[in-house]
Amino acid sequence: MRIYNLLRSKEEKAVTTRTKAGAPPGTMVYTGHRQMEQVHMHLTQYHGDFLEVQTVEEDIPTPRTEEATLWYDMRGLHNLELVERLGKQYGMHPLALEDVVDVHQRPKMEVYEDGVLIVIKAFAFEPTTRDLSIEQVSIYLSESTVLTFQEDGGDLFRSVRKRLETSSGRIRSRGPDYLAYALVDNIVDKYFTVIDQIESELDKLEDTIMRSPEMSTKSQIHDLRLALLTLRKSISPLRELMNRFSDTESRQITADTQVYVADLRDHVIQITDLVETYRDVTNGLYDLYVSEISFRMNSVMQTLTIVSTIFIPLSFLVGVYGMNWDNMPELHTQYGYFVLWGVMICIILGMLAWFRSRRWI
Amino acid sequence: MRIYNLLRSKEEKAVTTRTKAGAPPGTMVYTGHRQMEQVHMHLTQYHGDFLEVQTVEEDIPTPRTEEATLWYDMRGLHNLELVERLGKQYGMHPLALEDVVDVHQRPKMEVYEDGVLIVIKAFAFEPTTRDLSIEQVSIYLSESTVLTFQEDGGDLFRSVRKRLETSSGRIRSRGPDYLAYALVDNIVDKYFTVIDQIESELDKLEDTIMRSPEMSTKSQIHDLRLALLTLRKSISPLRELMNRFSDTESRQITADTQVYVADLRDHVIQITDLVETYRDVTNGLYDLYVSEISFRMNSVMQTLTIVSTIFIPLSFLVGVYGMNWDNMPELHTQYGYFVLWGVMICIILGMLAWFRSRRWI
Amino acid sequence: MRIYNLLRSKEEKAVTTRTKAGAPPGTMVYTGHRQMEQVHMHLTQYHGDFLEVQTVEEDIPTPRTEEATLWYDMRGLHNLELVERLGKQYGMHPLALEDVVDVHQRPKMEVYEDGVLIVIKAFAFEPTTRDLSIEQVSIYLSESTVLTFQEDGGDLFRSVRKRLETSSGRIRSRGPDYLAYALVDNIVDKYFTVIDQIESELDKLEDTIMRSPEMSTKSQIHDLRLALLTLRKSISPLRELMNRFSDTESRQITADTQVYVADLRDHVIQITDLVETYRDVTNGLYDLYVSEISFRMNSVMQTLTIVSTIFIPLSFLVGVYGMNWDNMPELHTQYGYFVLWGVMICIILGMLAWFRSRRWI
Amino acid sequence: MRIYNLLRSKEEKAVTTRTKAGAPPGTMVYTGHRQMEQVHMHLTQYHGDFLEVQTVEEDIPTPRTEEATLWYDMRGLHNLELVERLGKQYGMHPLALEDVVDVHQRPKMEVYEDGVLIVIKAFAFEPTTRDLSIEQVSIYLSESTVLTFQEDGGDLFRSVRKRLETSSGRIRSRGPDYLAYALVDNIVDKYFTVIDQIESELDKLEDTIMRSPEMSTKSQIHDLRLALLTLRKSISPLRELMNRFSDTESRQITADTQVYVADLRDHVIQITDLVETYRDVTNGLYDLYVSEISFRMNSVMQTLTIVSTIFIPLSFLVGVYGMNWDNMPELHTQYGYFVLWGVMICIILGMLAWFRSRRWI
Amino acid sequence: MRIYNLLRSKEEKAVTTRTKAGAPPGTMVYTGHRQMEQVHMHLTQYHGDFLEVQTVEEDIPTPRTEEATLWYDMRGLHNLELVERLGKQYGMHPLALEDVVDVHQRPKMEVYEDGVLIVIKAFAFEPTTRDLSIEQVSIYLSESTVLTFQEDGGDLFRSVRKRLETSSGRIRSRGPDYLAYALVDNIVDKYFTVIDQIESELDKLEDTIMRSPEMSTKSQIHDLRLALLTLRKSISPLRELMNRFSDTESRQITADTQVYVADLRDHVIQITDLVETYRDVTNGLYDLYVSEISFRMNSVMQTLTIVSTIFIPLSFLVGVYGMNWDNMPELHTQYGYFVLWGVMICIILGMLAWFRSRRWI
Repeated sequence: MRIYNLLRSKEEKAVTTRTKAGAPPGTMVYTGHRQMEQVHMHLTQYHGDFLEVQTVEEDIPTPRTEEATLWYDMRGLHNLELVERLGKQYGMHPLALEDVVDVHQRPKMEVYEDGVLIVIKAFAFEPTTRDLSIEQVSIYLSESTVLTFQEDGGDLFRSVRKRLETSSGRIRSRGPDYLAYALVDNIVDKYFTVIDQIESELDKLEDTIMRSPEMSTKSQIHDLRLALLTLRKSISPLRELMNRFSDTESRQITADTQVYVADLRDHVIQITDLVETYRDVTNGLYDLYVSEISFRMNSVMQTLTIVSTIFIPLSFLVGVYGMNWDNMPELHTQYGYFVLWGVMICIILGMLAWFRSRRWI
Repeated sequence: MRIYNLLRSKEEKAVTTRTKAGAPPGTMVYTGHRQMEQVHMHLTQYHGDFLEVQTVEEDIPTPRTEEATLWYDMRGLHNLELVERLGKQYGMHPLALEDVVDVHQRPKMEVYEDGVLIVIKAFAFEPTTRDLSIEQVSIYLSESTVLTFQEDGGDLFRSVRKRLETSSGRIRSRGPDYLAYALVDNIVDKYFTVIDQIESELDKLEDTIMRSPEMSTKSQIHDLRLALLTLRKSISPLRELMNRFSDTESRQITADTQVYVADLRDHVIQITDLVETYRDVTNGLYDLYVSEISFRMNSVMQTLTIVSTIFIPLSFLVGVYGMNWDNMPELHTQYGYFVLWGVMICIILGMLAWFRSRRWI
Repeated sequence: MRIYNLLRSKEEKAVTTRTKAGAPPGTMVYTGHRQMEQVHMHLTQYHGDFLEVQTVEEDIPTPRTEEATLWYDMRGLHNLELVERLGKQYGMHPLALEDVVDVHQRPKMEVYEDGVLIVIKAFAFEPTTRDLSIEQVSIYLSESTVLTFQEDGGDLFRSVRKRLETSSGRIRSRGPDYLAYALVDNIVDKYFTVIDQIESELDKLEDTIMRSPEMSTKSQIHDLRLALLTLRKSISPLRELMNRFSDTESRQITADTQVYVADLRDHVIQITDLVETYRDVTNGLYDLYVSEISFRMNSVMQTLTIVSTIFIPLSFLVGVYGMNWDNMPELHTQYGYFVLWGVMICIILGMLAWFRSRRWI
Repeated sequence: MRIYNLLRSKEEKAVTTRTKAGAPPGTMVYTGHRQMEQVHMHLTQYHGDFLEVQTVEEDIPTPRTEEATLWYDMRGLHNLELVERLGKQYGMHPLALEDVVDVHQRPKMEVYEDGVLIVIKAFAFEPTTRDLSIEQVSIYLSESTVLTFQEDGGDLFRSVRKRLETSSGRIRSRGPDYLAYALVDNIVDKYFTVIDQIESELDKLEDTIMRSPEMSTKSQIHDLRLALLTLRKSISPLRELMNRFSDTESRQITADTQVYVADLRDHVIQITDLVETYRDVTNGLYDLYVSEISFRMNSVMQTLTIVSTIFIPLSFLVGVYGMNWDNMPELHTQYGYFVLWGVMICIILGMLAWFRSRRWI
Repeated sequence: MRIYNLLRSKEEKAVTTRTKAGAPPGTMVYTGHRQMEQVHMHLTQYHGDFLEVQTVEEDIPTPRTEEATLWYDMRGLHNLELVERLGKQYGMHPLALEDVVDVHQRPKMEVYEDGVLIVIKAFAFEPTTRDLSIEQVSIYLSESTVLTFQEDGGDLFRSVRKRLETSSGRIRSRGPDYLAYALVDNIVDKYFTVIDQIESELDKLEDTIMRSPEMSTKSQIHDLRLALLTLRKSISPLRELMNRFSDTESRQITADTQVYVADLRDHVIQITDLVETYRDVTNGLYDLYVSEISFRMNSVMQTLTIVSTIFIPLSFLVGVYGMNWDNMPELHTQYGYFVLWGVMICIILGMLAWFRSRRWI
């Protein structure tokens, strides 16, 4: 069952249960199961025309200028010590740090005194196995810094980085709040891709059901249902998150960025609508599948009934004249055999007429 | 699956995914798939008795008088340069322009500083294929101008234009806000036509199910369900849109027009109710279909069971006396054969009586 | 499908589509299909002890005294000219007049400057055909006048008229607002009758399903479902209407009448509850029907299986000894035939025991 | 169908329809169908140590002291004249009196100028017939008096009376508002008993379904569903009633009693939860029943298919060698018969292996 | 049926019904069924570095210092006298004491003048029997004391006690409100374990359904449904409880602790989400099971139909030539027998081709 493996896989559960139960709040425990060889971290500094990207090893470098916006992008969360060092340097609250490394968080936005923590899920859908993989992404926004934490080494934010590098759009001339918006927008945009893929799977499934439902059809419907359930679970808290994003009066988010957040909120509502619609579509497909099976069964039954109802009485009749009684007068008549054939043909025709009157043939 | 092709067709998806992912906000990308040979644009100017309609080619003409209301009606959105030129001339915000050419918008109303953008969907239902085609229509209302953007070349607003020309009703003596209302009202009125067509399809379907459910019945129900789902998805945001329309305190909409908007809002609520009712009706039809199939299967099974239960034991009996044992004393009795017939007729009558007692015949 | 014919019948649709599409708002178009030979109109004037009822022909008579309450009761709406004349004389808004003759309105209450328009539906249920007929009734209440508009010639308000004539109750000593309340109360009271009739149909249906489900049972359930759907659609807006009725601060409704309106509102809530309960009951009946069919099918299948499973192997056995091989040693034994009978009886008994162990018999 | 008979039985309907339709509001009509031989009425007066219980005949006695709390307990409502006399003596509003004798009221609480009317339903569940009987109880609370009206002669308030008599608890030292609370609490407590009984019926039903579903199982599920529906219908308005009870600022209810009302409100919420949970449980039982039937049908079908698929081809084979052709060379071979047996045994074994591979046996 | 035994077992019901019906409010009645040999009670006192744990017998010891936080942990509630003595010593309200011993309370938080009572449920899931056992835990928090009441002797709070003893975390340096938070947090954390176990059961169930649905599958689904229903019933009031916890302005809860309560509230929301998701998953599993059964039945039917449709007509044919008519000319032809075999083989091949065209094989 894919949903469980995704939400809380076997290994994860072991970790969660063993180490977290009874731990005092604020204790950092990495609950994910992805253990990369090494944590990758990049620091991007920009301010107008100035842009510098550097790979960060163990030591966290100091920013170049006071005015520059700093973006630390950490991929891989199992090095708790490094996460804590980075977090503390930029004033993250212990509870915020705990949330970053606990990858089973509900998407949420927490406003702390010095910054804002956004926890959000990134999805990837594998059409062949109908596997929906989830990655938790945390974005911490403080006055001049954005810290992003990903579980995996995959470069989720490539397009944002590219926009920074090509200096296209508004992104470089704006502050860290716009960067945070751009990163969230980037993840939300990918939801559309996932939904497109699910849609095309539903599309194929409908064709299969219409043509001939197979053994695997019902488990495919089940898988897509689970995928949509998982999506809904992660997307539904986003609406509230967006409201808090645009309502929040912390200094970190400027009025200028609010306009874009409102646009993003529209996208989230649209995705929520799509997920609900596709859930309804999936239920419709299930109904279609069940009624297809029922219809086929009915047509199979009719065939059986037509053949049986015609030939079982006839078999009885020929059985009668296959008996070995000494005294069976009919058997010795000249045309008895042909009369019997006539009777049997009449029975067949009568049956067929009756079946036609009941619309079975 | 019709819904997908409608909402986001294969070609559209390619466009969306390839060009929009990672583009900075405010970038205009035409996400539709309708590429007309040429963009059609008409400019209608009116003010009391004065009315002038002209076809606009490449250059956007300047208005004739200061007081006249101007209505630019553009059909075909693939010429982004022209859309942008027109938009900029009348002060449209970049985000508004982006929304106009992205045809996958959720219906909405955005209030900008200088104007109001209404995005709405127009529908057409093709009864023979049960295809619901969607077209996005954007209406931009500023102080003295109305800009309308349609995807297709079809004349959606014919009746409004006719009312303008014949000078009937209030329309010519009122400002651009009343025109915008009339255009939206025109599209909403067409929803009733679509719902009427769906209703008549449901009507036919019910007859078919009652008479004899066919192979195609279940996919027809499925199609209508999808059509209603699509309708609901596009109509449900309208209620909120209408509330914002009548609540909005921008200078563009006069108190006088508000009365009519309230009336329009009633229509939208009525349509929402109808769509919900017809969804319930469709679910009822599906239940009816399933129970029809079950009832038929039951009656098929009863026929099979009656025939088999009568003749299989009789066949056994005649089989017994068809055996070739040397020592079968009964076979040599004078009336054994006729006694057997008597027994078999008794069995048949007993069976029939038992079936009747169970209400199977 | 009854619901469609009721909500918007074939003829009505033709009218609606042809004449209303594109008409400017405020245009009066009669969208009903009931064309009575002649419009009936009665004027009732009363004030304390004074009461006068007169039939109104073409000309609208002037009231007798200033203080009297006037009640114009018009039955038949196809004479638009007469409706408009009456409406204008008592200061009805053009939009109110449009609503009166458009019989597809959602029940609603509109507060105008000089009066209040209440649009409400009256129902009649025909048990034999399970047909629910709808009639739209509009009540316009201004300072000293009540105008009622019905589609049909049937006397919906007989009991109110009778109470006026017999001078029983408070009705004659009170103003037009109490009369309006009494008229609405009268229509709402009839909903209970309709629900009683539906209930008794559900009652009969349950008996039929328990005894023996018939071919027509499923379409009867379907019909009642549609009837309840239609009722709900017309009754659910009433709750809001009642709230507005009792909240409204217009001069037309006195505080004294408000107490009665609160009582009426309780009735509406009770009806809404009943409709929802009966919808649940109908769904329960549908489940009962489906499980009845399943249970019957199962019992039919068991019968078939018992008979077949016993006699098909036996038939095979007797077939074996009906073969004509030259060398079949058993056939020539003395008691082979009787041994075979013994074996077959053992098989039968063994089978029966096995069926019993599986609780099939 | 039990629900109908309970909510509005055949006789009741006749009464309601015939006499209430068209009656002016405030008219007292007894809509119940229980006609007791005589109305029983008791008057209980208490004040600290003083307690006096007396049976009231025709004349309503005057209270003994000014400070005493008076409780009139009337059982049987068909004597309208007596109800009205008692009501008027203690200042009941005509609408309150109408509600008391109309036993189809929705549970509610009405605040009048001089008192508070609480209408509530008492239930009794008859496990053997699964009959849920409803009785309407009205409690009118004024400054120093509590009037209770029951339909039936059964002593619903025995335990309250006992507590009064034994002087245990706070009840005697408190005013009429605490008495009213105690009476309502008493009725609400009985809901738990009814739910316990329904629960134990569901319990038995589950056992039956698991062991072997019977003909009556589906109608038992249906009955319990109806009972829960009826309960929900009467209990759901109680939550609102309790809110009004504790919010109300009338002098009749003291702050001291409010604490207990809050406790009672918790009970009502708990009952509502239980009813909803048991409705879900009942739906789960229905699903279990349906899947049980499906599973059984599947196992029946498999048996039939196994037996038929093995023996029908074998019967064909032995039929072949039972034919009477002059020229059938095989028949004359020495070991043909035994070869045939070998072939047939191979067929049987092959079939069984194939069935096993499909997990049918 | 597990849910009933859990919520209100047979023995419990007897107690509830017999003793509580009619008892005045505030009467302490132990409604649980767990009668431990002896009540266990521990007193933990701590204040900074000071920590003392002692087992309490009959007499309740006096605290050592004024500043210390006191935690009385009582396990076993049947000794009402002891509960009352402890409660009264620390100023518990009679209604609070009644709630503590009535183990059928809805989870809730009550704010009294001198303290706060939190009633919450602890769960344990037994995977082999799919039994969900419930224990009610009451936590009473006053200015310097925390009283906890458990039904069972099991040490629910071991990890909290351990944290106190090892002096790790903030727990020892904080007041009783933080202790109360830690205790509730401890119970809520265990919900995740229960949900993990249910999830792994669902996981196994899905495998079974996919491989081969068994007799017990449907009752396993039913059991898990009931378990989730029970969980939801106990968890859904927690959200409101948490809101009250963090909103409450009583002196007992410091602003410092509020931050942690907000975190706990997030966990509760996450659990509620998970329970809802798993309910949907369980429904999906049920659908999967039903469609699996349908699919299997369809495939069984097809096998039966293929075999019957081929061999029943052939059996008829061979029956014809097994008849004993004197005059059957075909029988005497030289190659008739072989011609018949040819005909029969053609029939078989034709049938197979037809089945293939219908996609049955």
